[in-house]
Amino acid sequence: MLDNKNGWTLELDLPKPSLEDNRADADRLLSAAAQALEAEAVDIAPGVLRELPRQLRQWNYRVRCLCFNDYGRWRLLAVRSPESTRAFAGLAVDLGTTRVVLRLVNLETGQELAESAFDNPQIAIGPDILERAHFADTEGGLEKLHRLIIEALQANIGRIAENGGLSTEDICLVALSGNTSMTHLFLGLTPSGIIREPYIPVINCPGLISARSLGLHLHPEAGVFVFPNVGSYFGGDLIAGILYSGLHESDQISMLVDVGTNAEVVLGSRDWLVACAGAAGPALEGGVWEIGMAAAPGVIDEVRINPESGSFEVHTIEDKPPRGICGSGMIDLVAQLFLAGMLDFRGRLVSKAAPERIYETDEGRRLIVVDAAHSAGGEALTLGQADFDSLIRSKAAMYTILETITGYVGVGFTDISRFYVAGTFGSFIRPRSAITIGMIPDLPEETYQSLGNSSLGGATRLLRCRDAVAEVRRIYHNITYLELNVNQEFMNRFSAAKFLPHTEAACFPSVKRAI
Amino acid sequence: MLDNKNGWTLELDLPKPSLEDNRADADRLLSAAAQALEAEAVDIAPGVLRELPRQLRQWNYRVRCLCFNDYGRWRLLAVRSPESTRAFAGLAVDLGTTRVVLRLVNLETGQELAESAFDNPQIAIGPDILERAHFADTEGGLEKLHRLIIEALQANIGRIAENGGLSTEDICLVALSGNTSMTHLFLGLTPSGIIREPYIPVINCPGLISARSLGLHLHPEAGVFVFPNVGSYFGGDLIAGILYSGLHESDQISMLVDVGTNAEVVLGSRDWLVACAGAAGPALEGGVWEIGMAAAPGVIDEVRINPESGSFEVHTIEDKPPRGICGSGMIDLVAQLFLAGMLDFRGRLVSKAAPERIYETDEGRRLIVVDAAHSAGGEALTLGQADFDSLIRSKAAMYTILETITGYVGVGFTDISRFYVAGTFGSFIRPRSAITIGMIPDLPEETYQSLGNSSLGGATRLLRCRDAVAEVRRIYHNITYLELNVNQEFMNRFSAAKFLPHTEAACFPSVKRAI
Repeated sequence: MLDNKNGWTLELDLPKPSLEDNRADADRLLSAAAQALEAEAVDIAPGVLRELPRQLRQWNYRVRCLCFNDYGRWRLLAVRSPESTRAFAGLAVDLGTTRVVLRLVNLETGQELAESAFDNPQIAIGPDILERAHFADTEGGLEKLHRLIIEALQANIGRIAENGGLSTEDICLVALSGNTSMTHLFLGLTPSGIIREPYIPVINCPGLISARSLGLHLHPEAGVFVFPNVGSYFGGDLIAGILYSGLHESDQISMLVDVGTNAEVVLGSRDWLVACAGAAGPALEGGVWEIGMAAAPGVIDEVRINPESGSFEVHTIEDKPPRGICGSGMIDLVAQLFLAGMLDFRGRLVSKAAPERIYETDEGRRLIVVDAAHSAGGEALTLGQADFDSLIRSKAAMYTILETITGYVGVGFTDISRFYVAGTFGSFIRPRSAITIGMIPDLPEETYQSLGNSSLGGATRLLRCRDAVAEVRRIYHNITYLELNVNQEFMNRFSAAKFLPHTEAACFPSVKRAI
Repeated sequence: MLDNKNGWTLELDLPKPSLEDNRADADRLLSAAAQALEAEAVDIAPGVLRELPRQLRQWNYRVRCLCFNDYGRWRLLAVRSPESTRAFAGLAVDLGTTRVVLRLVNLETGQELAESAFDNPQIAIGPDILERAHFADTEGGLEKLHRLIIEALQANIGRIAENGGLSTEDICLVALSGNTSMTHLFLGLTPSGIIREPYIPVINCPGLISARSLGLHLHPEAGVFVFPNVGSYFGGDLIAGILYSGLHESDQISMLVDVGTNAEVVLGSRDWLVACAGAAGPALEGGVWEIGMAAAPGVIDEVRINPESGSFEVHTIEDKPPRGICGSGMIDLVAQLFLAGMLDFRGRLVSKAAPERIYETDEGRRLIVVDAAHSAGGEALTLGQADFDSLIRSKAAMYTILETITGYVGVGFTDISRFYVAGTFGSFIRPRSAITIGMIPDLPEETYQSLGNSSLGGATRLLRCRDAVAEVRRIYHNITYLELNVNQEFMNRFSAAKFLPHTEAACFPSVKRAI
């Protein structure tokens, strides 16, 4: 059991009413709660009031309660008998464009009760934000997108509650983080302004919203805390990620990168935070090559090339026969090819370094990653020069973004004491390989820390920690969003980064030593 | 049209979005509202968000909006196009045990649009608080009482809206004041604790409640501001009355009395407020005598006795043939009888002073107020000695309460610069008569000011004035509720007050001069 004295729940022993102390039931409860929380005042959800008089008397004025701090205003959402074994439960939701992850938490102990994930059913409308936003503009489209996610959440919440040994009515608090568009669709708000210049969301800071008003049937007074977005391209998932990393609490400068189609980057410390986002290209997620795919069984996630023999050792997820390659596997592959001399510093395949694997076609050179005899489908897994070019453009974009943001603030990479890599994809990247290809700066490997699903992690932290809302507000207010201008300077940096690892080899001394 | 620059509505001209100013729609609106209101922050009702993006663009970023300050937290409840002729409407509700009065107000101009009243349908369950509270304890009883008042309100709001030329959807704000029990039934909360020692309400300060959550169908995001009660016997109607009187803003000491079955009294100034409530007896409301009745056509509300001839001149409401007498008529009658020597200083009927009107019965003396030939029903309207005794007990209780509260604070009656008489009944009392019988202190008549329905007046003021909620909070926090102990001192005072006007004639010099 976790120490949860800083959580959202309280157990109170109220002074009993008398002619001398004839405060109202609610006032009695709320003033005790305010005292325990060191809050000026605590509000009460109206639905709690109906049964309160009977409950307080039946429970002899001892009561467990759940209070939430909605950006400075405390609100009591639910009460329970101190004898009841029913928990106050909370649900963390990482609302991804593709995948939605749920984590059920006991709000009193902080304990994780269950975790589950499901595909965002809006995929049926369109795989990405843009298609869904266009669909939302059509007659009834927004309502449909909203209903799809709400219904899927309700069904999956029912299942996760059952798995956690609870009823959906036990869920009193939801912390939800997602990108700006997904958050909007969840709230039933149009993402129309988000995708069009000048890129205007409907709302940045929704705060605590009644679950019922959104169509979610949980505890009758359950609230959904939606992480704020700083703008159209910097969503609540990133704020949750910062919260989870603790970057905003450190004396030292840290950087957080969420790698994906969009690279979202935060640089800062306790005193300041700068963020930017830019297209790094779908190449980093394994989405563009013929054999590229998201991480799944049989997908290559790790590659070693024996420097002596030039033989390939590929590792697949769950050790299934190889059928494709994911982003982290691709980064590994490119790094190893480069170290083995099979890719030159411009990222071109070098036939003579591996004549049995590299062959010419009408569209240029191709590399056999896995031959037909060893692949899952009985056909060789191959990558063309264009595939490598696209990966290199993506890694160059990423590095350029990192250079731009540090340059803007005037700090060097070596000033960064901690470099967090967020996102499911990020957790599979091996820093050594990413450094080798010049995607991330040449810092000691221990500087890099993978956060895994930091959006879910931040949402979970919000459920566990009473101070987290104030931290979210502080992050939200402190952050300066830097609009990336693709100007001449950016293009110069980008061009220099389109080499392996970089035109300036001095930027990557550890790579220089290795080759 | 009233000056309404201090009202709850705003007209805003928002800066248009651009790449340089790409704040979210809601943030753009709310920060302009916060600036106009000099508020730190303004929240937004979630239901307003859905249409906001389309509306802002259609209205070219000019917008009228309604904001409400719920005890320090500002909330934007509704928006309208600046071109629209539809008003933001507010509804003031005086929720009486017997009668409910509605007043429709244009929130933008402060203008009154319509007024109406209806009998509280809970009368069918029981005429008074006690019977309804007992019924609320029975199975389904509370729900029935709640439903009765909500349905009656909804129906009457529909009618008043129509009379005011509006739709119920135009009503965005309701200000409701009532006694503690009526407020509880309106909120669907049990009044069970209110009527039993130690007299505990469920809640004192409900604040702004969603109309929809109470079952009222008005504007989708309409809120109901429920005036707080200081305790079981000092309801929101009194707080509204104080607000209406302005007593809490004056440098000078004022007193406010709401006369009824319960006499509720407030004494104070800008710096302090003391309140108490005590049973003055139903006699003051005309409820106990055989011929007593509430004010209605044909009811005697004024009596003059010709000092020379001893003849009675009675005035009836709407000049209809007399059929009964109300409280203010009774106070007049007793004062006139006393001045004419027909009642002695102990309140006994003096036969020899009016032998043609006063006669003996087995139950004591009786007075013919109107003879059979002149009454509506063809029977003489008469009052017995017991009727006079009951009125005198009531007036003595009232005076004793006034003496006790001033004595507690240590001020004399002559320190009181303004004496407000609240309540429908209070507005009919002639101070001269009430002074003559020793019910209220012998102060210059111009000290007395009738407020009429001060509960409705206070609710209306809340709809019109942006600062009113802060004033309500200040009143609520400043007020000291004095529990009336019916101790020996109280009984001594009460005994002394059971004379006409008082055992201490020196307390009523103006009466002494008149007799």
